[in-house]
Amino acid sequence: MGELRVRSALVTGANRGIGLGFVQHLLALPNPPEWVFAGCRDPKGQRAQELQKLASKHPNLVIVPLEVTDPASIKAAAASVGERLKGSGLNLLINNAGIVRANRLENETLKDMSEVYTTNTIAPLLLGQAFLPLLKKAAQGSPGSGMSCSKAAIVNISSIGGSIKEMYLWEAAHCVAYRCSKAAQNMLTRCQSMGYREHGILCVALHPGWVQTDMGNAAGYTPPLTVDASVGGMLKVLSNLSEKDSGAFLDWEGNVVAW
Amino acid sequence: MGELRVRSALVTGANRGIGLGFVQHLLALPNPPEWVFAGCRDPKGQRAQELQKLASKHPNLVIVPLEVTDPASIKAAAASVGERLKGSGLNLLINNAGIVRANRLENETLKDMSEVYTTNTIAPLLLGQAFLPLLKKAAQGSPGSGMSCSKAAIVNISSIGGSIKEMYLWEAAHCVAYRCSKAAQNMLTRCQSMGYREHGILCVALHPGWVQTDMGNAAGYTPPLTVDASVGGMLKVLSNLSEKDSGAFLDWEGNVVAW
Repeated sequence: MGELRVRSALVTGANRGIGLGFVQHLLALPNPPEWVFAGCRDPKGQRAQELQKLASKHPNLVIVPLEVTDPASIKAAAASVGERLKGSGLNLLINNAGIVRANRLENETLKDMSEVYTTNTIAPLLLGQAFLPLLKKAAQGSPGSGMSCSKAAIVNISSIGGSIKEMYLWEAAHCVAYRCSKAAQNMLTRCQSMGYREHGILCVALHPGWVQTDMGNAAGYTPPLTVDASVGGMLKVLSNLSEKDSGAFLDWEGNVVAW
Repeated sequence: MGELRVRSALVTGANRGIGLGFVQHLLALPNPPEWVFAGCRDPKGQRAQELQKLASKHPNLVIVPLEVTDPASIKAAAASVGERLKGSGLNLLINNAGIVRANRLENETLKDMSEVYTTNTIAPLLLGQAFLPLLKKAAQGSPGSGMSCSKAAIVNISSIGGSIKEMYLWEAAHCVAYRCSKAAQNMLTRCQSMGYREHGILCVALHPGWVQTDMGNAAGYTPPLTVDASVGGMLKVLSNLSEKDSGAFLDWEGNVVAW
């Protein structure tokens, strides 16, 4: 069982919830990354205060302005991260930014379907494209054969809500836009795993569990999992992945989730 | 093994390919529908000539102007169909309209992802919502218990390209936007099957096979299936469906396709 050892990682949607948890856990690793990039929409805003506090204590934490629905913002973020890395690559891209709308089947709209898809599905595609040169560089610059998250990986934060087989908690939360976007995002993870295999980049979809975040609390129940337990579990899962796991859909404990 | 007997059916994207095939086969049934509604973008245009010819021979064929990406056009179509049906319901909604872009993973764009999703995934949702009152009426007005396509059904034309497990023909055609939209559409079919079960509406996703249409030919090979064989197969499959099949993903021969 390996320990996750990366020189650099980028987390999207990093100002709160699971994204913030990833940043905190990465900074607290026995061998922390040289650079942790925290993408958030408004780095100077009220909602980024936790990140700002962390950055004042951790010089290896860089807050990157990133609006994941804007291709120009994604390109600018990739350029700024590349500059900071000074010729070395990016080991880990964690596509965590995501949104949900608490609609029911009967009142789902074109606008909500479209917006949720853009953030949850199209953005991880565009981020993969924009950071591909840096991920390739990291894969090439890592010793040994085979794939791992310590070398180069795209981690798409998915949800069991995107499992077409499970239809998890349908009665409590229709959320058709969210379910469709996550099923599509799982397909994207499979496409990325097939397309980026030749570059040595591992791609995986993770279900974080039902977590005590703003999104998790929205269903009106208290979710069973803390952010710490979820993120700790996911990082342990990531540390154990190899080539054969690329394209998989796993939960925070490493169990396979059905498509 | 039943024969499909519907009083009314609507087919979207009906001016060519598989949509036109459905219209022709429905009109040729031993007991043809009282009304076949053929949705197409530009009923008077060059590309609707085949439909116009058919309509001149079949007074039970009504060409309905329908731009599936426009909620107002969908609502207008539902109103016009409802008026024509004079108080009876719509038995069969066949969501066939679909598009593909021959992009590769590396050059897929926000615009293409978005447009393909709107046509292939959001439109079937909105059509289900708009025609729900007519579908409910058909279910209520049909004798006997249990569900069937002769009573009330939503048929979403999907594709094995949307199977996250199969990753069918990946090397030949990345088509990430298409694959993601069809995986999401399969999730939508499951959502519709759960949400509309109480109304007695059967919902199913069908893979038509690889068919000799403009879309099928786009990959540069000659597809093995004629439109006739595909549509004939699908109508036979539909005639045999019952309650237990609602929410399934089946091919033109009735085989289950993996999510």
